Amino acid sequence: MSHSTTPVCVLGLGLIGGSILRALTAAGRPAYGWNRTAAGADAARADGFDASSDLRATLARADAGHIVLVAVPVPALDEVFAAVARQAPNAWLTDAVSVKGDVAARVAAAGLTARYAGAHPMAGTAESGWAATTGDLFRDATWVVTADDTTPAPAWREAAAVGLDCGAVVVPAGSAEHDAAVARISHSVHLLAEAAALTAELDPGASRLALTLAASSFRDVTRVAGTAPSLVRAMCEGNRDALLDALDDTIAELISARAELADHGTVADLVERGHAARADYEAVTRTPFTPELGGPGWQRMLRERGHLGGVVTALPSSAPSTDR
Amino acid sequence: MSHSTTPVCVLGLGLIGGSILRALTAAGRPAYGWNRTAAGADAARADGFDASSDLRATLARADAGHIVLVAVPVPALDEVFAAVARQAPNAWLTDAVSVKGDVAARVAAAGLTARYAGAHPMAGTAESGWAATTGDLFRDATWVVTADDTTPAPAWREAAAVGLDCGAVVVPAGSAEHDAAVARISHSVHLLAEAAALTAELDPGASRLALTLAASSFRDVTRVAGTAPSLVRAMCEGNRDALLDALDDTIAELISARAELADHGTVADLVERGHAARADYEAVTRTPFTPELGGPGWQRMLRERGHLGGVVTALPSSAPSTDR
Repeated sequence: MSHSTTPVCVLGLGLIGGSILRALTAAGRPAYGWNRTAAGADAARADGFDASSDLRATLARADAGHIVLVAVPVPALDEVFAAVARQAPNAWLTDAVSVKGDVAARVAAAGLTARYAGAHPMAGTAESGWAATTGDLFRDATWVVTADDTTPAPAWREAAAVGLDCGAVVVPAGSAEHDAAVARISHSVHLLAEAAALTAELDPGASRLALTLAASSFRDVTRVAGTAPSLVRAMCEGNRDALLDALDDTIAELISARAELADHGTVADLVERGHAARADYEAVTRTPFTPELGGPGWQRMLRERGHLGGVVTALPSSAPSTDR
Repeated sequence: MSHSTTPVCVLGLGLIGGSILRALTAAGRPAYGWNRTAAGADAARADGFDASSDLRATLARADAGHIVLVAVPVPALDEVFAAVARQAPNAWLTDAVSVKGDVAARVAAAGLTARYAGAHPMAGTAESGWAATTGDLFRDATWVVTADDTTPAPAWREAAAVGLDCGAVVVPAGSAEHDAAVARISHSVHLLAEAAALTAELDPGASRLALTLAASSFRDVTRVAGTAPSLVRAMCEGNRDALLDALDDTIAELISARAELADHGTVADLVERGHAARADYEAVTRTPFTPELGGPGWQRMLRERGHLGGVVTALPSSAPSTDR
């Protein structure tokens, strides 16, 4: 049973967009896609999906009140949003890009804010392209849907329904709050993994020996340094300001630990607080709640619930919340 | 077929020492153990192993040319080495402690250098005590045996045979070189994991949200922050000087990446070099070689082989290498 009957138009059939098309179709939700290259669209059609490489025709179809989900690389966003504004002004709009403040600014520049609720599915693999797509990529994952003061309630509802129909739980958050959080749990973490991998090679006296001796702790910590550099750069560079704040905190902690070790021979402070933080992460639970959409200050209330660990697993009936 | 018939006396039957006693016994090697607490020795005996909590009697037995392997916590090392010097001066001596320069200095202080070759099995779990022991903990792991200029060839041979009989491959290294390497592939990596876990909680605006959104990259990078703080502290604080060098390199890389991001909007330099370093790690191969023990400069030659990725999987016949 899908959470909305509105057809979904997925723009970009790479790992994320293609996996969304698969998941929605499997959930019985009407969904179709567009891909820039004919090869990508052909591959999706060969697997039985409704896909095209004609953007104009695809958007003409979406203009009938469908929801458009943009899953193209960042450099293509402006052109795609401009096309949506011209050819599908009556569609609702969401996306699947990993930064949200920057995308909201691009949406505003295209004049589409009144149709838009941003999104970020927290899932992925090191693979890319249609061949890597899978219908269960988002199963039990979190799927952020942004609730900024400008977010229209119907767009939020439709964007959330897409996430739910993909098998995810929806987490409401402000765009800035989302970007600050992912800077800390993903972007800075990737840079720490890169620095850890690199440090193993920086001792001229022992580099080959170090790699021979590296065991499970090194393997786990540096695993994400195996991600394609272009993907890591796109995430990190697209979230510059929040990432700078996160890096400043990490660097300050390491400098402080280094001084404590040099001056007092101990790393107790960092190790004990780091261990406690990891325990907090392991203890995290999701608290399902039913969102009220459209009343006064509804976006702020949603942000507060998300901030406290609230997740949305079902939507209220589509009547305005004040009538319920 | 074991690599030596010399009986092994294991001092300390926690996770590492107990697992060594299990592995050696399973390999048909004569082995027995001592544990400070009677409870630990009783548990080993209940599982069918030859174990005692009488150190004097145990060392009297080892004095008949056996090899003593010390696997006690660092604070107990000096007392145990002094007992070995008094009661088993005719035994060979090795250990299983994760730093080597500091242990070699303690061995020298006890007057045991002429009987000693240090060792560090590169394996472990987050568990501890006899209950956590397992006979296959070292299967295919690396097992460093130190080859310093003062290392006696018979001690190196006996220490290496213990590692081989536990199912590991032996990597020769100088003590200082070992300590520099593990600072980079283990100790600093643990501190980076602690800092990553902590950074997720340091943003006052979004901490709970960050933990809700944390996905596989955060889980993997921070996993070792779940290790007991006392174990992380013992490793890190026991290898202070080498760890300070490693931290300096890591911190310099992060500061440089932060500046590049702030000034030029890119993290390309760190990401591309980190990715290349991880690829180097994934490409590491072990090159088996047969060590020549006892000739002029044999320790230096072994260190050079270990430095280039050489591992020992079998020992030469016990005749001096010059006679072969």
